[in-house]
Amino acid sequence: MAGEKGVRLLNSWFSPFGHRVRIALAEKDVEYDHIEENLSSKSELLLKSNPIHKKIPVLLHDGKPICESLIIVQYIDEAWPEKKPILPSDPYHRAQALFWSDYVDKKIYETSIKLLKLTGEAQEEAKKELIENLKTLEAELGDKKYFGGEVFGFVDIAMLPFTNWFYSYEVFFGLKVDEEVPQLVAWANRCKVRDSVAKTLPDPEKVYEFFVNLRKKWGVE
Amino acid sequence: MAGEKGVRLLNSWFSPFGHRVRIALAEKDVEYDHIEENLSSKSELLLKSNPIHKKIPVLLHDGKPICESLIIVQYIDEAWPEKKPILPSDPYHRAQALFWSDYVDKKIYETSIKLLKLTGEAQEEAKKELIENLKTLEAELGDKKYFGGEVFGFVDIAMLPFTNWFYSYEVFFGLKVDEEVPQLVAWANRCKVRDSVAKTLPDPEKVYEFFVNLRKKWGVE
Repeated sequence: MAGEKGVRLLNSWFSPFGHRVRIALAEKDVEYDHIEENLSSKSELLLKSNPIHKKIPVLLHDGKPICESLIIVQYIDEAWPEKKPILPSDPYHRAQALFWSDYVDKKIYETSIKLLKLTGEAQEEAKKELIENLKTLEAELGDKKYFGGEVFGFVDIAMLPFTNWFYSYEVFFGLKVDEEVPQLVAWANRCKVRDSVAKTLPDPEKVYEFFVNLRKKWGVE
Repeated sequence: MAGEKGVRLLNSWFSPFGHRVRIALAEKDVEYDHIEENLSSKSELLLKSNPIHKKIPVLLHDGKPICESLIIVQYIDEAWPEKKPILPSDPYHRAQALFWSDYVDKKIYETSIKLLKLTGEAQEEAKKELIENLKTLEAELGDKKYFGGEVFGFVDIAMLPFTNWFYSYEVFFGLKVDEEVPQLVAWANRCKVRDSVAKTLPDPEKVYEFFVNLRKKWGVE
């Protein structure tokens, strides 16, 4: 057990933001304790570690908390610099990686949540918007192996957890992601055979069941 | 003139995000061409340089565009590393700086915009929320000289442009920021004597006039 002076992750099995952190830790071969939080009754440790947002994931490293998934992944890259760099070293390429990860947060995650929450006409709008945003991301990928080129890295880690939601889009909304953005789906499949990803992402059907319950809670048909 | 192979900033005089970039460039003594954009008729150069968000500021460095203000400031720090570091070198302190700058975007900027747009009861709510968020930021500052300690840096640059809106809050909403968060106001005054800040931030009364017109456009009393 890593204990107080090791590495601990306060997390929830479902969180795509938590998955980012887990993939990054696995890429760096960092051992850690995974602490599953009950989000309807948050622990004292979580509230003390992230008093501002009170959200998971929180990485505790030697007792010091780091919050916000993209900041945590950047931290992991810098705190364990000797293994597989996650961000490129060139400032311009770093800025590009940060830009596209921010795009995932603002344009993929937020549009996905809208799509899952809305119904009728508004749902159709959100669906079109999500497809368009995924196409923009696919265009950025182009025919590269990973978003950063030949090396698996920051944007891959930022986006991968959301590819696990594609199955739910198809069942809920008939959105055939593999027809809309085939290159993006091929990239996701390439990444999913990596050990760090394979052992982190949950079964898409389990994700779907989670969304079924969540949508009931939200009062969405 | 810096021209194609130099440093150019596509900006708008009012933008707090643009001010961040200008302060960072001034701290690093980087010469650049400032290109004022007409936001109601955006230039081809802006649309080509930031096709995703179509927003200012955009930094063009040797013709390569960098977008999103906090990403640009981080880029500036890395591209001109020899002068006055903006982010600390320690990974944990870097993560803290990124966290609090993200807080400024999510909790100070967004609440400020809400406050400026709303009326009546909702305006009162937004006012209370903004005061609370400013107090949280003040608590993080504590009795340090700057957010990072003894050295002017990333969080200072992220937050300073919004301190220029305090005058408007007082005139519009009777919000006496200097009574609510005196230490934060003292910090802002300490920073404002720096050359990089003094020559960047516009006159608060000019900012107020801008908001008067903006609120008319938004249909707010």
